[in-house]
Amino acid sequence: MLRSQTKLFALGKRQLCRSMSKSCDLTLVEVDDKTGIATLTMNKPPVNSCNLEMMRALKDSMKQIEGNKSRGIILTSSNNKVFSSGLDLNELRNPEQERLVAFWKELQEMWLTLYLSNLPTAAAINGHALAVGCVMASACEYRVMLPGFTIGIHATKFGYVVPPFIVNSYLSVLPRPVVERALLQGKIFSTDEAQQINLIDEVANSKEEALSKCASFIGSFAEANPVARALTKRQLRAEFARTLLDEPEAELKESLEYITSPLFQDSLDAYLAKLKSKNKK
Amino acid sequence: MLRSQTKLFALGKRQLCRSMSKSCDLTLVEVDDKTGIATLTMNKPPVNSCNLEMMRALKDSMKQIEGNKSRGIILTSSNNKVFSSGLDLNELRNPEQERLVAFWKELQEMWLTLYLSNLPTAAAINGHALAVGCVMASACEYRVMLPGFTIGIHATKFGYVVPPFIVNSYLSVLPRPVVERALLQGKIFSTDEAQQINLIDEVANSKEEALSKCASFIGSFAEANPVARALTKRQLRAEFARTLLDEPEAELKESLEYITSPLFQDSLDAYLAKLKSKNKK
Amino acid sequence: MLRSQTKLFALGKRQLCRSMSKSCDLTLVEVDDKTGIATLTMNKPPVNSCNLEMMRALKDSMKQIEGNKSRGIILTSSNNKVFSSGLDLNELRNPEQERLVAFWKELQEMWLTLYLSNLPTAAAINGHALAVGCVMASACEYRVMLPGFTIGIHATKFGYVVPPFIVNSYLSVLPRPVVERALLQGKIFSTDEAQQINLIDEVANSKEEALSKCASFIGSFAEANPVARALTKRQLRAEFARTLLDEPEAELKESLEYITSPLFQDSLDAYLAKLKSKNKK
Repeated sequence: MLRSQTKLFALGKRQLCRSMSKSCDLTLVEVDDKTGIATLTMNKPPVNSCNLEMMRALKDSMKQIEGNKSRGIILTSSNNKVFSSGLDLNELRNPEQERLVAFWKELQEMWLTLYLSNLPTAAAINGHALAVGCVMASACEYRVMLPGFTIGIHATKFGYVVPPFIVNSYLSVLPRPVVERALLQGKIFSTDEAQQINLIDEVANSKEEALSKCASFIGSFAEANPVARALTKRQLRAEFARTLLDEPEAELKESLEYITSPLFQDSLDAYLAKLKSKNKK
Repeated sequence: MLRSQTKLFALGKRQLCRSMSKSCDLTLVEVDDKTGIATLTMNKPPVNSCNLEMMRALKDSMKQIEGNKSRGIILTSSNNKVFSSGLDLNELRNPEQERLVAFWKELQEMWLTLYLSNLPTAAAINGHALAVGCVMASACEYRVMLPGFTIGIHATKFGYVVPPFIVNSYLSVLPRPVVERALLQGKIFSTDEAQQINLIDEVANSKEEALSKCASFIGSFAEANPVARALTKRQLRAEFARTLLDEPEAELKESLEYITSPLFQDSLDAYLAKLKSKNKK
Repeated sequence: MLRSQTKLFALGKRQLCRSMSKSCDLTLVEVDDKTGIATLTMNKPPVNSCNLEMMRALKDSMKQIEGNKSRGIILTSSNNKVFSSGLDLNELRNPEQERLVAFWKELQEMWLTLYLSNLPTAAAINGHALAVGCVMASACEYRVMLPGFTIGIHATKFGYVVPPFIVNSYLSVLPRPVVERALLQGKIFSTDEAQQINLIDEVANSKEEALSKCASFIGSFAEANPVARALTKRQLRAEFARTLLDEPEAELKESLEYITSPLFQDSLDAYLAKLKSKNKK
């Protein structure tokens, strides 16, 4: 995709700025004039960890793309080693209640916006995709990954019990027995392993190739009526989004209770201490 | 299967005639005296498109076979190029309300009769199986296909949003991620592709061989108690037929609303115009 | 696993004895001091058929292991040809009502205890695993089998319609289309066939190797928080245990009605007569 073929989403960018406190750059949106495909780039240094602001930026960018008659969305990262490290664990550790509520609501809405997007969605996974990084990739319709990276939901390793909508992201891509084992082990897959179990669809040797393969996938819907496509997708996926569509407050309450429990807080502390001591060595 | 081994379903045929306006030949039923297996042949020129009368004939023939202590049903076509082209789009285009209601009810009942049949069911797919042609094959327990043909549900290509019972036919055979992508793309699979994803179970080189392989499959239930088999099948499949069993009227209403919407009518017009111009070239 | 590394579960054994009428040996529990993994051995001659007492012993042993801070459970058999032959058909043939109620409740509770165990569970299938023998293996998280044996649920062959929780054991391991066909045919798979469809995870050449592979699987959860693991497992499996968790009485009633029906009793008689005449030859 040549730069000259793309235009920066100027209006969108400005709208985005109003809704963010500090920076306009957490996400970047470019639309290819020729293909009509939007590339949504996660751009939060150092590792695209998802705090409240990042998830709001992602959600806003997706809504903006949908509103702008694009033909599809490719989700990728500006960091060439990390797609996303997952949720910002600082949001979960000893959280302030009001912030935690806002944070979790943004996660719910971001996920719904991506999972039920009217547009074809694809992830160009050009770096490690951990926890919510993997969830976002799984919520897309197609995944192309670069070799030498890892992908997976390792929540049980830091004492976290994933909520049903995250289980369902995995179930949208993988068979139930594979999902169960992967979640219980907190399994992180290499690019090769991910391809073997069809967690990813293709391997690409460069980000450019990954973007191009994602664009080809989006092109595979050329003959499909976009409205019929969107309604069919919603029908197929609504079952898996049921809790969040019908009872977001109940899911919020349950998640908050677990996150603020001593069980989880102690387990998170232990995990972070272990990571710290590993990094020192 | 030699002709001499089979007898025409004489009584059944006559019953069939009473329920049809013009012809007795939309479907043919032959029962093999030796194996007790009934072959149900779709016989509506030119391409076994499913209008109201064809679906009623199919349903009636299946009920007749079930009532006649046959050991299994093989669904096939008298046309050696087309298994079935799917619904007769004339029933859907600018439909007269009363006819549309009758048409849709017959589709619901025909599908339920096939999907929940007490008997082992197999499809000898001796030609293209498109849209409802593919749905009928998927509603059987086994599929044998001849090489060089195509099979799939391409509804999104003519702006149609398949109802849940059609999604469930696919889900009875294919994994969820494969179903989603196939339905959204309106993907038509070649015989080879269909075998790779297990949409079909076997490839046969002639219709005779296909019928023979279907008969072998039906023979695999020789040691199973037929009543226990039928009840187990119903238990497994009832979940996927739930809407049609419990709320056929609601499904009818929803389908009618969509079919008569300008959204669908315009999309269908555009599709038919495109087909016409393709055929002229 | 060397004998010297294991201790007999003395307290547990005594508790077990109180709850059983005749013998303390229906099940054996050994815990490896080093790994903390408990081996639960079925030990009811000649073929580990599951009568009321056997299922109670299995349930009690599992509860005892869970209460004793073990790190995982390996289910295996002391018989080197039969893992388990399934339910004791004497409990089903012309049953006395009170005994049948108690029997079925034990089956429900044994299954729930195993399927929803907080611990990692694995089956070292060192012999034929038929009917409920296969169900128990499928309710574990991992399966290693010795070559030359068979595994499957052949209920339709003796006229039995498996209840939903047994269907769900299979669905926890196999794709829906495979489950449907296997249950309807009453298919018994060889070790090789079972591996091809992923009904088992690995083949081992000796019981020792099977136990060791099961222990490795249980070791794969070393980095997972045990509480988060258990809660995640329960969340994933609760859907499939829903009927038994919420409405065990309804399931009991339905099962009893079917078991005591002439339809089933006649079919069971015919099956047993056939087995008898086969054995005579």
